[in-house]
Amino acid sequence: MQRIEKYIKQIKKPDENVKAKALDRLANQARPAGSLGTLEEVGAKIASIAGIKDKNIINTLDVQLKNKVVVTCAGDHGVVQEGVSLFPQEVTPQMVENFVNGGASINVLAKHAGATVKVADFGVNFDFSPNMPIFHKKVRKATSNFAKEPAMSKDEAIQSILGGISIVEELLKDADLNGTTVDILGTGDMGIGNTTPSSAIIAAFSGISVAELTGRGTGINDEMLKNKIQVIEKALELHKPNPYDPIDVLSKVGGFEIGGLAGLVIGAAAYGIPIVCDGIISTAGALIAYKLAPNVVDYLFAGHRSVEVGHKFMHQLMGLEPLLDIKFRLGEGTGAALAFELIDAATRILAEIKTFEEVAIINAQKQML
Amino acid sequence: MQRIEKYIKQIKKPDENVKAKALDRLANQARPAGSLGTLEEVGAKIASIAGIKDKNIINTLDVQLKNKVVVTCAGDHGVVQEGVSLFPQEVTPQMVENFVNGGASINVLAKHAGATVKVADFGVNFDFSPNMPIFHKKVRKATSNFAKEPAMSKDEAIQSILGGISIVEELLKDADLNGTTVDILGTGDMGIGNTTPSSAIIAAFSGISVAELTGRGTGINDEMLKNKIQVIEKALELHKPNPYDPIDVLSKVGGFEIGGLAGLVIGAAAYGIPIVCDGIISTAGALIAYKLAPNVVDYLFAGHRSVEVGHKFMHQLMGLEPLLDIKFRLGEGTGAALAFELIDAATRILAEIKTFEEVAIINAQKQML
Repeated sequence: MQRIEKYIKQIKKPDENVKAKALDRLANQARPAGSLGTLEEVGAKIASIAGIKDKNIINTLDVQLKNKVVVTCAGDHGVVQEGVSLFPQEVTPQMVENFVNGGASINVLAKHAGATVKVADFGVNFDFSPNMPIFHKKVRKATSNFAKEPAMSKDEAIQSILGGISIVEELLKDADLNGTTVDILGTGDMGIGNTTPSSAIIAAFSGISVAELTGRGTGINDEMLKNKIQVIEKALELHKPNPYDPIDVLSKVGGFEIGGLAGLVIGAAAYGIPIVCDGIISTAGALIAYKLAPNVVDYLFAGHRSVEVGHKFMHQLMGLEPLLDIKFRLGEGTGAALAFELIDAATRILAEIKTFEEVAIINAQKQML
Repeated sequence: MQRIEKYIKQIKKPDENVKAKALDRLANQARPAGSLGTLEEVGAKIASIAGIKDKNIINTLDVQLKNKVVVTCAGDHGVVQEGVSLFPQEVTPQMVENFVNGGASINVLAKHAGATVKVADFGVNFDFSPNMPIFHKKVRKATSNFAKEPAMSKDEAIQSILGGISIVEELLKDADLNGTTVDILGTGDMGIGNTTPSSAIIAAFSGISVAELTGRGTGINDEMLKNKIQVIEKALELHKPNPYDPIDVLSKVGGFEIGGLAGLVIGAAAYGIPIVCDGIISTAGALIAYKLAPNVVDYLFAGHRSVEVGHKFMHQLMGLEPLLDIKFRLGEGTGAALAFELIDAATRILAEIKTFEEVAIINAQKQML
């Protein structure tokens, strides 16, 4: 835990002066004040983050999000033994393969957004070749079935979070070698059964009833949904995860990739990189990070609001407003990748829309010609 | 009206076979069925439109939306005499100038979406130089004050719609000269006071109370809002626009640019081009078009849901689900331009995400190497 705290202490407050200057510019652009809604706040937030590293941002307000990376974190879940998912566990490694081959949904949407996809194994129930071009962060081949025992030990929970943080460091090192940096990160997930721990996590933190927080995942029927709710309710009764101890929650009802996703958020915040969370699993990871270090929220963006019902309660807990609401329920990072495009647009709005003053200058110059 | 009907008769039904094949492919992609929500329907709809012209689409399902154009339609409104807007009418020509100079919000968002901006004058209260690179479709310098008399004659209403249709034809002719085509259109608006006729139009068609449909436009206070509602209520009482006669509604409480926007939608549908409407003014135009020819909806996409309260009722009337909901209330085509990016992503989802079968083939090929 001390190793995680080292990174948490590293998280800086974004530059408030840049934010104020950005909001001022937005309010003075040649359009009604506030008329570009959510993207105005997004632009100011991105600028305030960029302002930490680049002292010139306060003058230009021009943030270029060039190097965009989605990290899709995979892991398996012992709780699938309880019949909570439609798909067999074999699908998890198959999809990891599919991500690496470039034909999956996240590859297509990341490409559209001009982003790169990186895949990380935190606990897939399969032995990948060490040569496979993924981040090898496996804690163990699938969590334990939390209907019967804690999903993982506290040490494993910490290991999964540190694995996520280390990915941020490795990405930065790689980018540094290429003379670039990581301008924005997105998180994504893959793992059969992973909406079950995600619903359990939001239930543990919020105290809202499991029935209200639990959805159909990949599309289970009424009977399976009823069973999924009971499995989560019983696990919470059995383990009594302490909502004031995020590591306790993660270890008892979480997942290795959820720990990894939490680590990505902490790592991104520690290194001053904006990070976009995707669906309910990514956001469960973000919520663990938020409970460990509430100030990660200064770096965090909610990519979209999923069909999965528990998602909106996670956003509410962190005070985040999702950028998209188009009935996605896939994960992989698809909603984060698509949200990159809106965030990128927000940077252009801030930098490029002329103020009333700038318009007047242009007109005066034209008249002088 | 006969001249408009000629175009309405030209509107074809999109290719149902292409749509069925698109939905089939989407359902067989290596991900849970339906998991990319709204963008699946969007992709199938776009493909079914493209299938009319390109018989090969049924084989490839690969629609390339290369040439994207936003047409921003400007006009002034006599009803501003009633104190319904914060800004003076002089702002309309200034903003037209700003669009042409490239520094306005729509220029920035269109550029981000890889789209071109075209500006059209349907009734700005200003004499633009004939050399100004805009579509010169002026019907008259501002509508009449519909608090006192009909906004325009029926002939003027028809002229404004025909002006919009002619823009589609001119864009196609231009594109043809460059060896391209127009792949998708977006509509936008500029005109001080133009939320007032837009709210009046949705009130006339829906019968919902004016108070429920009328918003603050660019940001008027409670007192001005109360006045705006009364102005619309009295105008509807005075003119009794016939909801079964869209030309009657447009002429009594509409605007020249709103007629132009209706014409753009009819023209796009007549020439088989998908068209995205923006905020409440664009959508008021789309609604006039829809009331004249309900099948335009096969070509129509709702870019976003505006803060302006009447907007959602327009979408409901046409059965359209907006792609974005990020508190925009600017117009100009900004929401349509941003929605282009999601529609473009929808075409990539349909064409590029591999099916389970394709993934199996790739894996078999890899194993043979």
